Amino acid sequence: MSARPEAFIALRDPAAVAAELAASRGPLAGLRLAVKNNVDVAGFPTTAGCPAYATGPAGSDAQAVARLRAAGATVVGVTNLDQFATGLVGQRSPYGGVRDARRATHVSGGSSSGSAVAVALGAADIAVGTDTAGSGRVPAAFQGIVGVKPTLGVVSVRGVVPACRSFDAVTIFARDLDTADAAMAAMAGGGGTRGWPLDTPLAAPVAARVAVPDELPAMAPGWAEAFRAAADRLRADGCVVEPIPFASFLAAARLLYDGGLVAERHAAVGGFVDAHPDLVDPTVGAIISRAGRVSGSTLARDLARLAALRTECLGLLTGFEVLLVPTAPGQPTVAEVAAEPVASNSRVGTYTNFCNLFDLCAVAVPSGTVPDGTAGAAQFGVTVLARAFHDAVALDLARRVMLATPPPEAYAGGAAPLAEQRLPWPARIADAAVQTVELFVIGAHLVGQPLERELRSLGARWLGPARTAGAYALAALDTAPPRPGLTRVGGGGVRVDGEVWALSVGALGRFLAALPAPMNLGRVELDDGRWVIGFGCATEAAAAGTDISAHGGWRNWLAAGS
Amino acid sequence: MSARPEAFIALRDPAAVAAELAASRGPLAGLRLAVKNNVDVAGFPTTAGCPAYATGPAGSDAQAVARLRAAGATVVGVTNLDQFATGLVGQRSPYGGVRDARRATHVSGGSSSGSAVAVALGAADIAVGTDTAGSGRVPAAFQGIVGVKPTLGVVSVRGVVPACRSFDAVTIFARDLDTADAAMAAMAGGGGTRGWPLDTPLAAPVAARVAVPDELPAMAPGWAEAFRAAADRLRADGCVVEPIPFASFLAAARLLYDGGLVAERHAAVGGFVDAHPDLVDPTVGAIISRAGRVSGSTLARDLARLAALRTECLGLLTGFEVLLVPTAPGQPTVAEVAAEPVASNSRVGTYTNFCNLFDLCAVAVPSGTVPDGTAGAAQFGVTVLARAFHDAVALDLARRVMLATPPPEAYAGGAAPLAEQRLPWPARIADAAVQTVELFVIGAHLVGQPLERELRSLGARWLGPARTAGAYALAALDTAPPRPGLTRVGGGGVRVDGEVWALSVGALGRFLAALPAPMNLGRVELDDGRWVIGFGCATEAAAAGTDISAHGGWRNWLAAGS
Repeated sequence: MSARPEAFIALRDPAAVAAELAASRGPLAGLRLAVKNNVDVAGFPTTAGCPAYATGPAGSDAQAVARLRAAGATVVGVTNLDQFATGLVGQRSPYGGVRDARRATHVSGGSSSGSAVAVALGAADIAVGTDTAGSGRVPAAFQGIVGVKPTLGVVSVRGVVPACRSFDAVTIFARDLDTADAAMAAMAGGGGTRGWPLDTPLAAPVAARVAVPDELPAMAPGWAEAFRAAADRLRADGCVVEPIPFASFLAAARLLYDGGLVAERHAAVGGFVDAHPDLVDPTVGAIISRAGRVSGSTLARDLARLAALRTECLGLLTGFEVLLVPTAPGQPTVAEVAAEPVASNSRVGTYTNFCNLFDLCAVAVPSGTVPDGTAGAAQFGVTVLARAFHDAVALDLARRVMLATPPPEAYAGGAAPLAEQRLPWPARIADAAVQTVELFVIGAHLVGQPLERELRSLGARWLGPARTAGAYALAALDTAPPRPGLTRVGGGGVRVDGEVWALSVGALGRFLAALPAPMNLGRVELDDGRWVIGFGCATEAAAAGTDISAHGGWRNWLAAGS
Repeated sequence: MSARPEAFIALRDPAAVAAELAASRGPLAGLRLAVKNNVDVAGFPTTAGCPAYATGPAGSDAQAVARLRAAGATVVGVTNLDQFATGLVGQRSPYGGVRDARRATHVSGGSSSGSAVAVALGAADIAVGTDTAGSGRVPAAFQGIVGVKPTLGVVSVRGVVPACRSFDAVTIFARDLDTADAAMAAMAGGGGTRGWPLDTPLAAPVAARVAVPDELPAMAPGWAEAFRAAADRLRADGCVVEPIPFASFLAAARLLYDGGLVAERHAAVGGFVDAHPDLVDPTVGAIISRAGRVSGSTLARDLARLAALRTECLGLLTGFEVLLVPTAPGQPTVAEVAAEPVASNSRVGTYTNFCNLFDLCAVAVPSGTVPDGTAGAAQFGVTVLARAFHDAVALDLARRVMLATPPPEAYAGGAAPLAEQRLPWPARIADAAVQTVELFVIGAHLVGQPLERELRSLGARWLGPARTAGAYALAALDTAPPRPGLTRVGGGGVRVDGEVWALSVGALGRFLAALPAPMNLGRVELDDGRWVIGFGCATEAAAAGTDISAHGGWRNWLAAGS
C-alpha cells in the first residue's frame, strides 16, 4: 500500500487484523474489508472526507458493514473519498487526491476512490463504496476491478452519510465477480427497505438481448473502439446486441447535477457546509451551497421530468435483458482535473449518472485496456445495467463479459497480483433475499429439449443433472408431443435421470398455472435423499403409456430412436 | 339536481346522454358518469376550478375516463371542485361553493365536491374524483356514499391536472361498493405506471386484524362515539380490533401542507398562479404562491422525513390487514369555513392526509349518522386503509363495515333514492390486473377444515363448491393427518365434491413450494367441463389407501365417522 498511502484515511492495528482474520468464520472468512469513510465503522470517525464533519468515533457499524462482518469479513481500515461523496474523480479530499493504482499521472476515479484503489492494490479483498451518480462504478473501471451497484433499497443505508438520499446505494468492489457477489449477497440478505419481487429472475437467458447506446458521446480516443469490441464479444457469445436511442438517458443524467435534484445534497449536509465554508473542499462546497439556492418548485418539477424520462427509457429497454455501456468515456489525468474540476468530473459521469435515477442495478467489470500514449494503458471497463431487482441478470451478463475478456494486468510495479478472475455461478445476490425452489425435470424441460426456453424465460437457473431414488417407473405417455411420465412405485423401481433448476417461487406459480394435463407437480425423491418439487403425471396417463423404465431416462429413450 | 346546481360546471345535452345510455354495452353499461373537472373529458374545457386556466376544450379523454367509457359508462357532465384540487371543503371555487346534498348549511367536502354531490343526489351513478390529501374520501363521507382511492400508480393520471404529482390518485365515487369496485376495476385494468405484485391478495382473512388509532384528535361532539361504534361492529363480526400509536401518522399528515411537500403544488400550477393572481381563488392562490417560496433543500429534507415516518408507520401496521379511521373528524358549516378557510380545512384532513404519503390504498364508506343539532344528522363515514396493492383487502373489510351498518338515508327532500347497498363479492380491482388461478381442493383446505387458514393467509378468495367430472376415484390416504387422494380413472369413475378458491399466481407458487409428499397439483376436470389446477396424489399412495369413492367426497367420508 505504500504506493498509494492516500487511499486510506485510517488503518486498524495490523496485529488485531491478523488475529481476527485467523479466527474468522463464515462465507466471507479470510477476506479483508476496506470501508469508504462515509459509512460508519465502529470506533472510526465517519468524516465523509471532511475531518471537521465527524463528531467522534462511530458508536456502531453501519448495517451493511455489520452484515459483512457477521458473514466473516475483517475490517482493515477506512478509505478516502471525494468529500461528501460529491465527485467522480477522487481528487476532492483534504486527505489528498487518490491517484490511479497503476499510473500516478491519472486520477483513481471517485467518489469511492480509496476503496477501489485499496482493492486494486491488494490491500483489501473487498471494499464498501457508495454510489449515487457512479461512485461505485467509475473507480472500478479505472482500477480494473469489479464494482457491484445493487438495486436501490436492497442494502440498508443506515449508518451512511447521505449524498442524494433518494438515489444512494451501498456498493461492493472486488477483484473478481464471485467475491463481489458473495459480499453483496451478505449485504443484501436483509435489512433493506424494499422487498424483492416474488418473481425475481435468477439468471439471464443464453440468447440474452443486450441494448447498447446508439451514440457514444464524450469518448476519449480509442475508448469507443474498446466498447464496440466488448459488445462484439458478447455478440460472439450468443447475445443479441442492438442499439437503442440514448438521448433521453443523457437528458436524465444532466438532471442530476444541472437541475433541481442537487437540492438533496444540500438537504443532506448543507447545514454543515453553509456554517463552515472554510472547512470544506472548495469545489464540493460550491456545489452544495449552490444546491441550497434551488427552489422546491424546481426540485418538484425536475422529479416529475425524471419520472417521465424514466418511463420513456424503461420503455426503450422493453424486450432487452440488459443495457451495456462504457463505464466511463475516458480517464482524466490529475492535471486535467485540477484545471477543470467540474467539467472533467461531469464528463466522467456521462454513462453512470442516469442509472440510480432510473432505478436500475449495475455491475461494472473490466473489459480490456486502451493504450493512451502514457506509460502503460488505461484500464477499460463496461457496465451491465438491468431493471430493478434484476441484479442476478446483470451479474450473469457481466460474467459473460469477463469470460470473453483477457483479465486485467496487475498494477504496475506492485507486489500483489490480481486475483484470478473467478466467476460467479450461481449469482447469489437474489438467492439471499428471494424464496427459490428447486424443480426436478425429466423431459421437455431438459437442457436442449423444446421447453428449456420456457424455464429460461421465467428467469430459472440450471443447477445441473440429478437422478431420482431407485423407486420410480418411467413411461412414454401417449401425448402430443410425447412426454415422460414419472411414477413412484417403491420397491422394484429404477433411478431416473433428470436435471434440477432453481426458480423463484413466483416463477413456480406461473409454471404451474400453465401446466397442461396429464402432467402434475409434487415431491420427487432424489438419490441423495432429498425430496424436491418435480414432474409426475396422472395415474391413468402413466398406465396408458409405454413403460420405458429400462432406459433410465428420457434422453436415453430418445437416443434409442423410439 | 336543481337542489345543487353548483355541483356541475357543465352538462352534456340530455338527449345525447339518453341515446348513449340506451346503446351502451359492457360491464358499466347504463351507468351515468360525472367527471371532476381537473380530469380531461374530450370536448369540455379542463378548468381545474379556474376558468382562465383552461385553454380550450380537451382534445381527448384522460386515460381513466377513456377506460370507463370503453367499459360502457356514459359521461353526463363535468363537476365543480376546490380550485386546483387544493382543499377538502368544496368552497374554493368561482363556480360556487358546493353544499352538502342533504343540508344546505354544511359544506359538501372537497376537493371532489361536485362529483360526490352528483352521486349522492342520483345525478350520476359513478363519478371520477382525484385524491391527494383526502379529496376522494372526505366528500364521500359527508355525502353518505362510497369513495375508493386506489393504490398510487395503478390508475393512470394521464390527462389529469396535477396537484402534488407524487401523491395524486384518480378515485371513484358511487352509492354502493359493488358499482364503485366495477368502475375501479375498469380504470385499474391497464395503463398505470406500477405493476401489481405477483402475490397481490384477493381477499382478507375472516378474522382480519384491524388497527385503530390510539387517539382521536379533533373530533366533533358525537363523532368519536360513532367511530367506536363502527369499530365495535367489526369486532362483533369476527375481526380483531386493536389500537396502535397514531402520533407519527399525524406528524406525516402535517408535512403535506405545513412542510416542504407543498412545493409540488407550485411545480404543478405555480407558473399560472404567479402570473394571474387576480384570476385565482384567494385562499388557493395564497397556498400555491407560498409553496413557490419553499426551498429545494426543505422539500428534500421533508421527503426524507416522510420516508422515515413511512417506515415507522408501516412497521406499526405489521400484523394488521388494515387500519380503520374516521374519514373526517367533523363536518363544518359553510359559515365556519368562510370564517376560518385554512384552519377548518386542515382539521377536516386529520385522518386522510397521511394516506397517499404512506402509499396506502383506502376505501371510504358510510357508517351511520351523528345528530349534531341541525336539521337532520351528519353522515358519518369510516375509511379502511391497507398497504399498497392490498386494494382488495380494503374493499373486503369496507364491505364488512357496510354489512354491519344501517344504510345511509336518501338526501333530504330528494326524489332519487340511494341505491340499495350492493356489496362486492368478489372485489374485482385486483383481478383486473393480477393473474389469478383457480385451485380445486378436496380435503384439508375445504372451508372449516384444518388448512383453510393456509389459503386465507395467502390472500386466496373462496369461490364456492365444485365437483369433478364423473371420472375419478377417491382414497383415504395412510398419511398423518389423513388426507384424501384423488385419482383420474376415466370410465367407471365418480364425481367428487370439493371447493374452488381463487389465488394469485404468486400465492400458488408459495403453496406448491410447501406441498408435502405424496400430494401433487395438476389439472382436474370439473363437471362443468373445465380443467382447473387441483389436488392429486402419488399413484403409490393412492393404491395403498382406502377406496372411499362411494362417499363422493371428503366431508361425507368424515361425516360417516370413518
